[in-house]
Amino acid sequence: MTSMPHIHTVGLIGFGQFGKLIARHLSPHVPLVICDPALPPDAISGPNQRAGDLATAAGCPLVILAVPVHTIGSVCSEIRPYLQPDAIVADVGSVKLEPVQIMQSRLPDHVDLVGTHPLFGPQSARAGLAGHKIALCNIRGRSHLPLAAFLRTVLGLQVILTTAEQHDIEAATVQGLTHLIARTLSDMGPLPARMTTASFDRLVEAVQMVQGDPPAVFAAIAEANPFAAKVREDFLRKAGAVVGALDAELP
Amino acid sequence: MTSMPHIHTVGLIGFGQFGKLIARHLSPHVPLVICDPALPPDAISGPNQRAGDLATAAGCPLVILAVPVHTIGSVCSEIRPYLQPDAIVADVGSVKLEPVQIMQSRLPDHVDLVGTHPLFGPQSARAGLAGHKIALCNIRGRSHLPLAAFLRTVLGLQVILTTAEQHDIEAATVQGLTHLIARTLSDMGPLPARMTTASFDRLVEAVQMVQGDPPAVFAAIAEANPFAAKVREDFLRKAGAVVGALDAELP
Repeated sequence: MTSMPHIHTVGLIGFGQFGKLIARHLSPHVPLVICDPALPPDAISGPNQRAGDLATAAGCPLVILAVPVHTIGSVCSEIRPYLQPDAIVADVGSVKLEPVQIMQSRLPDHVDLVGTHPLFGPQSARAGLAGHKIALCNIRGRSHLPLAAFLRTVLGLQVILTTAEQHDIEAATVQGLTHLIARTLSDMGPLPARMTTASFDRLVEAVQMVQGDPPAVFAAIAEANPFAAKVREDFLRKAGAVVGALDAELP
Repeated sequence: MTSMPHIHTVGLIGFGQFGKLIARHLSPHVPLVICDPALPPDAISGPNQRAGDLATAAGCPLVILAVPVHTIGSVCSEIRPYLQPDAIVADVGSVKLEPVQIMQSRLPDHVDLVGTHPLFGPQSARAGLAGHKIALCNIRGRSHLPLAAFLRTVLGLQVILTTAEQHDIEAATVQGLTHLIARTLSDMGPLPARMTTASFDRLVEAVQMVQGDPPAVFAAIAEANPFAAKVREDFLRKAGAVVGALDAELP
């Protein structure tokens, strides 16, 4: 892997929507060993990608956890025995405080830890990764620096170095509001498609981009982010005030 | 005016944000006489555009009312004496039922009437009109057909032929929701700009597109559209249900 020569293989735990996206974009640069207990091994295939057991995947110099946020604790316990000294473990969850805390407490001191949140998905990154954003939290060691360099120079991503707390504060608004508005608009039934304005078209695009997100992503954003509940209460209260003011002005 | 050879001049009543946009895009094709009592005559100038009094502007073969929806009644009464036989009067308001009814009742039988709603504004049409949409309601006479042809072939607009009622039903959702969400997000204070997703960027773009809309446009959408109140109540109720369901799932 360019800028990280000792990463001769990447172990990828989890081959759901996001795991597949990772595999597609990393495999041109480094061989991948992929483990997803929920899938038969022959469901995992691709150029420079092979299925492996948990010990093999977790024994790689870089291990990426592409698993739902609520399973990260049990996954950490399972991979712990196989982690090699000086390996790097990175997650890709939509929240950071909770997974970071879990990785810190459950994974051995001899591995470096990096929390990441790719701010894109299979939908928004359909045309490629370049220009998309990824949040990166250093947790333990200095591996986040060469990792950031790889993400920037090889994958063309915008890397945002941040803390888990600052991440969760911003993501509570960014993702919390997007998902709340998207779910509400979906619940309103088929939206007009003909007599639309450019601004309404943008709203509908936003809705469509997150509509395919797995329920686990939605749950992580809405429930595992400790700042999310306040943001949605705030939105609801302010929307109620706007509606109240408009209704009061009705002739 | 191509496809409408007898339109040798257009009278434009109102030179606000939208009047200016009309003038910019029509003046390459036909001379304009512009009247806006709120502006000094020297505020009105441009190639193929000249200021004129109400009698001159209203005496043109095509008269466009680019005035706030709540003033359309008084404007109709004022222009009535100057309208020429076989002239066409068109409005550009964001709602259609009320202005259409007012034009029908206050303007003489010897003029054709067309209700229009350009589904774009100075912000969204910054890069040009081509591809943008305009709703067109025939009210009286057959002038909507050559007008639609002009809008399509010369200005490159998508023309949507509709009724005033169908327009207001769709616009209540399209514009009502866009403005409600935009105003609510604005009230939430500065939104994150750094750790954003592509879908959140779309939301913010939608907000920014309508943020510059004059208060009269917002009022027309929110209050003069008879279907708008129901749409916002519906949004608020469904958003409340989504939030309630999420809060109930909190650990």
